[in-house]
Amino acid sequence: MRRSPGRAARAAGRVRDCERRPMPRPCGADPGLRRPPLARHRGRQCPRHETHDRFRRSLVARIAGRVRRFAGSIARRRCVSHAGLDKKLVLIVNKLMSILQETPELPANPPNPVDRAWGKAHPRIATGMHRPVTAMLGTAPYTSPRDAARKPRDQCDDGGDLGRENEREGGFGMHKPTRRTLLSSIGATAGSAAVYRTMDALGMLGPGAAHVATPDLAPGSGEGGHVVILGAGVSGLAAAREMSKAGWRCTVLEATNRPGGRNLTARGGDVLAERGMRQEVCFDPEDHLYANLGPARIPYHHRTVLGYCKEFGIDLEVFTNDNRAALFHDSTRFGGRPVVARRVLTDMRGYVAELLAKAIDRGSLDAKLTSDDKERVRAMLTSFGGLKEDRGYAGTNRAGYQGATVHAGLQAGDVEEVLDFSELLGADFWQYKLHFSHFLNQNPTLFQPVGGMDAIVRAFAERAGHLVQYGCVVLQIRRQDRGVRIVYRDPGGAERAVSADFAICTIPAPVLKDIPNDFSSETQTAIESLEFVEAVKVAFQARRRFWEDDSAIYGGISWTDSDITQIWYPCNGYHRPKGVLVGAYIWSSGPGQRYSAMSGPERLRAALAEGEPLHPGYAGEMECGISRAWLNVPFQNGGWPRTNPDAAATLREGDGPFHFAGDQVTALPGWQEGALLAAHAAAGAIHRQFTGR
Amino acid sequence: MRRSPGRAARAAGRVRDCERRPMPRPCGADPGLRRPPLARHRGRQCPRHETHDRFRRSLVARIAGRVRRFAGSIARRRCVSHAGLDKKLVLIVNKLMSILQETPELPANPPNPVDRAWGKAHPRIATGMHRPVTAMLGTAPYTSPRDAARKPRDQCDDGGDLGRENEREGGFGMHKPTRRTLLSSIGATAGSAAVYRTMDALGMLGPGAAHVATPDLAPGSGEGGHVVILGAGVSGLAAAREMSKAGWRCTVLEATNRPGGRNLTARGGDVLAERGMRQEVCFDPEDHLYANLGPARIPYHHRTVLGYCKEFGIDLEVFTNDNRAALFHDSTRFGGRPVVARRVLTDMRGYVAELLAKAIDRGSLDAKLTSDDKERVRAMLTSFGGLKEDRGYAGTNRAGYQGATVHAGLQAGDVEEVLDFSELLGADFWQYKLHFSHFLNQNPTLFQPVGGMDAIVRAFAERAGHLVQYGCVVLQIRRQDRGVRIVYRDPGGAERAVSADFAICTIPAPVLKDIPNDFSSETQTAIESLEFVEAVKVAFQARRRFWEDDSAIYGGISWTDSDITQIWYPCNGYHRPKGVLVGAYIWSSGPGQRYSAMSGPERLRAALAEGEPLHPGYAGEMECGISRAWLNVPFQNGGWPRTNPDAAATLREGDGPFHFAGDQVTALPGWQEGALLAAHAAAGAIHRQFTGR
Ligand SMILES: Cc1cc2nc3c(=O)[nH]c(=O)nc-3n(C[C@H](O)[C@H](O)[C@H](O)COP(=O)(O)OP(=O)(O)OC[C@H]3O[C@@H](n4cnc5c(N)ncnc54)[C@H](O)[C@@H]3O)c2cc1C
Ligand SMILES: Cc1cc2nc3c(=O)[nH]c(=O)nc-3n(C[C@H](O)[C@H](O)[C@H](O)COP(=O)(O)OP(=O)(O)OC[C@H]3O[C@@H](n4cnc5c(N)ncnc54)[C@H](O)[C@@H]3O)c2cc1C
Repeated sequence: MRRSPGRAARAAGRVRDCERRPMPRPCGADPGLRRPPLARHRGRQCPRHETHDRFRRSLVARIAGRVRRFAGSIARRRCVSHAGLDKKLVLIVNKLMSILQETPELPANPPNPVDRAWGKAHPRIATGMHRPVTAMLGTAPYTSPRDAARKPRDQCDDGGDLGRENEREGGFGMHKPTRRTLLSSIGATAGSAAVYRTMDALGMLGPGAAHVATPDLAPGSGEGGHVVILGAGVSGLAAAREMSKAGWRCTVLEATNRPGGRNLTARGGDVLAERGMRQEVCFDPEDHLYANLGPARIPYHHRTVLGYCKEFGIDLEVFTNDNRAALFHDSTRFGGRPVVARRVLTDMRGYVAELLAKAIDRGSLDAKLTSDDKERVRAMLTSFGGLKEDRGYAGTNRAGYQGATVHAGLQAGDVEEVLDFSELLGADFWQYKLHFSHFLNQNPTLFQPVGGMDAIVRAFAERAGHLVQYGCVVLQIRRQDRGVRIVYRDPGGAERAVSADFAICTIPAPVLKDIPNDFSSETQTAIESLEFVEAVKVAFQARRRFWEDDSAIYGGISWTDSDITQIWYPCNGYHRPKGVLVGAYIWSSGPGQRYSAMSGPERLRAALAEGEPLHPGYAGEMECGISRAWLNVPFQNGGWPRTNPDAAATLREGDGPFHFAGDQVTALPGWQEGALLAAHAAAGAIHRQFTGR
Repeated sequence: MRRSPGRAARAAGRVRDCERRPMPRPCGADPGLRRPPLARHRGRQCPRHETHDRFRRSLVARIAGRVRRFAGSIARRRCVSHAGLDKKLVLIVNKLMSILQETPELPANPPNPVDRAWGKAHPRIATGMHRPVTAMLGTAPYTSPRDAARKPRDQCDDGGDLGRENEREGGFGMHKPTRRTLLSSIGATAGSAAVYRTMDALGMLGPGAAHVATPDLAPGSGEGGHVVILGAGVSGLAAAREMSKAGWRCTVLEATNRPGGRNLTARGGDVLAERGMRQEVCFDPEDHLYANLGPARIPYHHRTVLGYCKEFGIDLEVFTNDNRAALFHDSTRFGGRPVVARRVLTDMRGYVAELLAKAIDRGSLDAKLTSDDKERVRAMLTSFGGLKEDRGYAGTNRAGYQGATVHAGLQAGDVEEVLDFSELLGADFWQYKLHFSHFLNQNPTLFQPVGGMDAIVRAFAERAGHLVQYGCVVLQIRRQDRGVRIVYRDPGGAERAVSADFAICTIPAPVLKDIPNDFSSETQTAIESLEFVEAVKVAFQARRRFWEDDSAIYGGISWTDSDITQIWYPCNGYHRPKGVLVGAYIWSSGPGQRYSAMSGPERLRAALAEGEPLHPGYAGEMECGISRAWLNVPFQNGGWPRTNPDAAATLREGDGPFHFAGDQVTALPGWQEGALLAAHAAAGAIHRQFTGR
């Protein structure tokens, strides 16, 4: 049951309650996630369940944009005053809500959906007064060498709106006319993926071009084809979305009651089910009080995920891995007390720099370095490590200042003492934990969708959710004629079958391996050889953001040698009264198995005890907690596959009419990017089989 | 002139236009920043100029919070649809606006302002159903050692609301009763600063406690005293706010027409004035299209700035310094082409690790390391540098993969080639630029206020702006009897004088040194010895976020060896159509002087040319640009003081009735934290002089 909320919260709740059930046809029991007060909703029609057109979405996006901007401007500028405003605001919000819930007739010809990608849906403010920057530069406009080579200057000067307008209509602006003309004709004849590849070949994309590299499926190319997609995680949803756009008939079978699979954001009132366990999520109903129990971060180079975020208008905020105020804790070192990351990193760099500088001074690298090189390495090391003139390390203010004030204040104060070298050497974080953010997928900048990772699922479900049959458990995967026959149990418990030309199977290997099938033995062997990580997360709602208030920790990760492995501080809701903190993120076998074997309350108790050394008084700060052991989640049976390139390669090849997707078939296990790339690849392969290419 | 905006924009503009003139009494010409269409506003009364009470602010905060949360829930959940909604929304927004602009009678006894700090102003959602987490844990609740020592368990279990309610009324909850009782009596008798110090002494604050360590000024303690504050930058505003709260009569004289001084956010329509130069800011009127031309980032340990942000309810978002997708550019290395930060950092670490590992292998550090130590250092280096088994460095996937795809995709691909060691050694970024984010004030997590740094100025001006006399140029600073006499030119051009008991002078040293005064010769010498940095920023509005689209750069900084020094990518508006990019951030002398000597268009042209090697086609992407050379700004004459601890210490001591503030008197020159700490210190010193302590 939800707690009785305030008036405004109740008004907003009206939207919230129906919105948070994104499946058009909820059917049967949901072993994954369920909200208990179902009765509250049965009698009520949620408008979104009635229409699924793009036009509505675009309007909503515009409204949302305006309300958000308006609210932002109020919030930022606050040029307002009224004692009785509070009540009136509630009335207005109610009014607004009731208008928002009307469902009108839709226009016969909704405008081209391409214009409605986020940002494009915002009303264009007339920018006729804009002159290109070159026009502002007075008499001698600067011409870049590339511009100069490309086109006469005066053509360039009237760019601005004109160029953009043309672009929007599919024409081409003033810049890069020849390339654009070329690309235009490629686009017209061979589709956008071909344009993308051409741009890539021409070097027009740069090192990390933003794109949704959708498979090269020309519109209509799937007409007459039928594909059945097993599983409605992000991989299955992306396959359904892209293939249905190309004209394929798509049937998506999903065992649970919700789309998203591992992409799961828990909010107050949700119910989390594991085998033999049921937890109600206890968080307050505020926007920032949620926990991403599956995926939580998106690195900048996951261009497919980010491309979809851009296309779908999903707001992003920075996710912080590397926070120098966070803690490193090894129960056997430094008296079992945690050490702030800033000190560990600074001193580690200092010691490394000193050691190398000394070795160079002793001539032991003379064979490898010229004397010029040596000077440069020395200079670098001095800066790298914060060494003194004599190239010794004796601490630097990068580690902070002693006492309550970390920074220099009125006067500089005393620099933190240097951590003992042998304690540091012996500590478990000395090795890889210190370097975590240097791993490619943990590099800054990382993002999270504002309000929860499932924004991605919602966006896909808005576009392809109508293709999904929920509560339908796949029982057999069969070959038939030149296609497939999938036997499943429907939400009523009846056994049914669907035949199709192809199947894309995104069911995670630990589940898939036990489903009777007609796969080749190589395929079956590959499936069986994929081992999934025993991933566990625990999340607590804290009554006070003690990590910010007491320790100046804003987001980021603390590390410990106990089973909880990590504590994540929320990267949102900064300075607000409460916060949801990830109190354990476990992915190694021993700890994962131990936590998976515990009951819900046991997990919370253990995680509180293990967090205590990092934050004395920890348990007393928490209002409630939840946990998720993916090993025990029906239809998942694990977190993600341990790296196994051979098995992944075998599955990527497909098996006749069967194709395999999900992160499990890629070199990016444990990342949505892999799941999406695999969906695109499977769709492309089927397309080639279908069209005989 | 503003461009003609859409309907909603116009509706919002009503708030915006008056809000963006935060000064209650605009008077005289503003050499700093002025919006040209003054005529538009003269006839209209902006409600904020009529009342300045805290009660109104609290209401506004609550409204803002609700509208924001409501908008957020719409935006996130989008369970809405209506073709005509757009129009209706505008009507509602207009209605809302008109209500917001009513100015009612104020209640006689506004509630205690302390309750209205951000977050506290939000309506409390009844959380009566909340049990503390321990109550969820079944029969054997986990008790932290500290809790156990502190109080019987059953007292703890009914904490929750009760504890908090008590707290709000000044009583104390169930937790830590003895400490709290103690603190309570300290608070009642000696004020909040004493409580803070006591908590600090008791070790209750932790290493980086969040607080606004305001000076220990008991309410009413300044009654009968008069202080004149010279300058209304953040330092002067903070002094005025804290001292007026304590009962001081405060007169703030500010030469320009706006509060904030160096804290300056430029938005479309603003006019930037330097000596002999006037630039109109050309950015589109969207919330994310602004440039912070002075302060732009707040590190996590600047507890005074962040404490005010929390107290004032200023929303924060992450500011990224260290983005591994950003670029390093040395025009003489790597063929003059930029190299992505990820590769530079990875290879630098690889080479350093290899060199040190080799030196250890050769036994050259045997005297310094035991054989156990050596093993541990080797293991660390392997992880640090991504070394192979033989401890050689031959590249790692941390540098990314070759070609358009940075990350591993379906399959792993080819790791980036290792950068040439001697090129790397010779490059100018090999030294300190690589390590920039390790400097204490550049450490993650950093923040920026959502919508612009001047949110801080606005918040101060809401509280203390009525004490400021704008357009009043200080001409002489004199001693008189036992106080001060300040001669100034008022906005009408008349010379006037104000007498007071004390003066706090925040006027930047390069201006202050030329104002006739009665300072001691030590003071005058110290002022003259402060050298200010020739800081310059250039900002461009790009028609396309090419850095994101083409290079996957989201926020962060690229470095180059040309004068522009840095390019900053915006840490907001991700994926939106346009963005404002800082095209130069200069603080070293030569480049600063060169750019300061240029005209506006020359600066833009030069900055475009210098950015071109980092982003081919750069100039063609820009719609317009602006620049700010702080050396040429009247009443500033520079960016911030170069480190000069002696001069700062002299000024911190004060000079009879004269006290000095601003970042210039601290160990944090160039940081608002210093400016605020100095204001608190000056207020505290005056308080001690006044009360004879
Ligand atoms: C703890 C954790 C942390 C993670 N962190 C990140 C991160 O930070 N960033 C990131 O990008 N990725 C992360 N990931 C990985 C990410 O969650 C996955 O890559 C992605 O969600 C996989 O999507 P999928 O569609 O391939 O599989 P799934 O989401 O597993 O979807 C498979 C679907 O098949 C359904 N199904 C199973 N059996 C049947 C059956 N018999 N009949 C019908 N349907 C069936 C399931 O119910 C499920 O809906 C994380 C994962 C976990 C578990
Ligand atoms: C380019 C740049 C980047 C910066 N980056 C950061 C950053 O990222 N983070 C950060 O925290 N800080 C940063 N700073 C530093 C920060 O701006 C300052 O520390 C802070 O704003 C100083 O405030 P102040 O009140 O001491 O001085 P100021 O803001 O300079 O205020 C002094 C006031 O005195 C007025 N005045 C001058 N002469 C007279 C006169 N004769 N009569 C009356 N009034 C007069 C001026 O008009 C001005 O309003 C940056 C500064 C610059 C220039």
